[in-house]
Amino acid sequence: MHVPGPADVELAADRLADGIVTTPCLRSATLSQLTGAEVWLKFENQQFTGSFKDRGSLRRLLELDDDERRRGVIALSAGNHAQGVAHHAGRLNIPATIVMPRTTPYAKVRRTRLLGAEVVQEGRDLAECVAVTEQLIESRSLTLVHPYDDPFVIAGQGTCGLEIFDQAGPLDDVIVPVGGGGLLAGVALAAQARRPDVEIVGVQSRHYDPVARRLGTATDEPPVPGPTLADGIAVKSPGAHNLAIIDEHVREVLTVAEATIERSVALFLDIEKTVAEGAGAVGLAALLEHPERFGGRRVCVIVSGGNIDARVLASVLLRDLVREGRITRLRVEADDLPGSLADVTGIISATGADVVEVSHQRLLTDLPARRVDIDVVIETRGSEHTADLLAALRAAGHGVSLRD
Amino acid sequence: MHVPGPADVELAADRLADGIVTTPCLRSATLSQLTGAEVWLKFENQQFTGSFKDRGSLRRLLELDDDERRRGVIALSAGNHAQGVAHHAGRLNIPATIVMPRTTPYAKVRRTRLLGAEVVQEGRDLAECVAVTEQLIESRSLTLVHPYDDPFVIAGQGTCGLEIFDQAGPLDDVIVPVGGGGLLAGVALAAQARRPDVEIVGVQSRHYDPVARRLGTATDEPPVPGPTLADGIAVKSPGAHNLAIIDEHVREVLTVAEATIERSVALFLDIEKTVAEGAGAVGLAALLEHPERFGGRRVCVIVSGGNIDARVLASVLLRDLVREGRITRLRVEADDLPGSLADVTGIISATGADVVEVSHQRLLTDLPARRVDIDVVIETRGSEHTADLLAALRAAGHGVSLRD
Repeated sequence: MHVPGPADVELAADRLADGIVTTPCLRSATLSQLTGAEVWLKFENQQFTGSFKDRGSLRRLLELDDDERRRGVIALSAGNHAQGVAHHAGRLNIPATIVMPRTTPYAKVRRTRLLGAEVVQEGRDLAECVAVTEQLIESRSLTLVHPYDDPFVIAGQGTCGLEIFDQAGPLDDVIVPVGGGGLLAGVALAAQARRPDVEIVGVQSRHYDPVARRLGTATDEPPVPGPTLADGIAVKSPGAHNLAIIDEHVREVLTVAEATIERSVALFLDIEKTVAEGAGAVGLAALLEHPERFGGRRVCVIVSGGNIDARVLASVLLRDLVREGRITRLRVEADDLPGSLADVTGIISATGADVVEVSHQRLLTDLPARRVDIDVVIETRGSEHTADLLAALRAAGHGVSLRD
Repeated sequence: MHVPGPADVELAADRLADGIVTTPCLRSATLSQLTGAEVWLKFENQQFTGSFKDRGSLRRLLELDDDERRRGVIALSAGNHAQGVAHHAGRLNIPATIVMPRTTPYAKVRRTRLLGAEVVQEGRDLAECVAVTEQLIESRSLTLVHPYDDPFVIAGQGTCGLEIFDQAGPLDDVIVPVGGGGLLAGVALAAQARRPDVEIVGVQSRHYDPVARRLGTATDEPPVPGPTLADGIAVKSPGAHNLAIIDEHVREVLTVAEATIERSVALFLDIEKTVAEGAGAVGLAALLEHPERFGGRRVCVIVSGGNIDARVLASVLLRDLVREGRITRLRVEADDLPGSLADVTGIISATGADVVEVSHQRLLTDLPARRVDIDVVIETRGSEHTADLLAALRAAGHGVSLRD
């Protein structure tokens, strides 16, 4: 196993100069105020395909010999890696085959095809795609571009770190999302090359925290089962090359909860007017969840990608409004008499709140006969307004309970 | 009436150098491909308070004499102008009073207060706030900072145009959202100062198109009544100073439809990973609706602001998914027998689609007795997948209709 070193990252920066966007790295006054740290943001969501994956993919492609270029490359990914490989292979006239599950949304398939790649859809999930990928490598003599466990890919991702050290003011920490470990290992090497005094801190979702466990910096609880909004870093087995570098140069990988990741995606939209995917928002989540670790320090957060499904983003926004008390579900008790529904909705609209949904339940209720439940979803100006509304309903003699 | 000229914009740039963000202006390869123009984007949504309004507000504040500074300023706005005035007055230690309707969401009120302003809430809408504003000007000897009809405000907004000419490559057109006309008039003066050959083109919503009508470049239809997503430019009476400049230097104000504005907000999120409010997205809407005007030309679009309510943004995203065929409402006919609902939902899930909502209607239906309507909202991978699903339901003997 050839483990790359700091010089490989410097070399990668030279080789990538033409094909990669030097993304902005800016200080955020508002997030600094909110978190108590001096916060810099590296906007890798502004990379051409919307994530840092462009860097490692291109670095790997530039290392192919003429024969490998002619035969083409293959990647197994329904996500950012697929877009990175398809885009740069297309630019360099290298045939690219991307294997994706059959369940992948058409928009992603179409976008990958528009970038010039052949998309093969097989299996219900990535695990079921492995066999067909191996078969295509064999039958077409293709070269696999691995998403993280590859010395050139790691060195390519590290160029993001070099840019940070050029662009930001003095730093104490760089916070890096960790899935397979390509970005974390690469940025750790970049720090070795330029600023070995800066601490490189990884972040994982509590649902997928193998690197945090390995370093002994996870929580005492077992990992939370189930899916995470940070699906881009939901990797069970990080790469061997990556772990070798992380073991040597990284001391700390923190973990963050789902609710904080969601809150961070919403804050990036609201404050920075920028779209971060779940994996791209875990750095801000770490600042919010670990203020004792970062308070008063100069910290750069890598916003590693912005490719989030529109339906998921809408749902994150609505859930955030529920958390802020702007959207609330209430169950209101009323007499089962003509006019009760009008009475309740009249009180709601008199306080200036909007009724979003209403359902009037007469058949199945725990209440005595002659009483009914009215379930309403309301939108208010915020939690104080909601409290006023509850008081008004109770003053009119209605039982009211808040519902999840 | 003192109408400002090109030299006033140059002077404004000198005076504003310290307090204003030089926002990025970048070429978009993907939007160029999509629209057939060479598209540059000026990201004024990256200004500190999320819109270009910072520029004009600060320019006006810098013109106050010591006595006016001490007494303080007042603005009437629930939107971007409020934030701009509050932020810069706060920075300069000038007391600021902002008058907003009582219906303003708490989040906006809170943000304005955090910026250091006193917020006075009166009336149900802006029109009802005018009296209290005049009364406060009188009783507290405050100076009004007008959102657009002011020579200094116009010159301040024009500095955005000067930056564009410094940052972008050669241009044929700059596309500018038009409400009160401050940004359009200012950018037109900036072009007179630096690049009189570049055409400055305004854009209005079809709901509020007074400037397009004045120039004779509106549609033949009357303005569409009702609210617009581009509420930031929903102005019935543009400023007198503004119109004097527009009459002299602008030949064309185009209009765009609501659906195109919504599509543009969604495209900015998806492609550029950036949040544009409705008014900030009308420039892209103009490129999409008027390809014959801009095809093959080098065009800079000003993304004038990014302050959009989270609930509105979520709704724009979901409506866009409906337009793309990813979320669909169906009415399915079935026999009124035990197991019919399970049969229908079984067919849906076998095609890989997700049921988002279902309601089973037995009481009120146009169908013969012994038949029922099942209303379902489904999420698919896209329109081809939806078509497959409809075919599968029909093949199983169900009547199916698409619903709005």
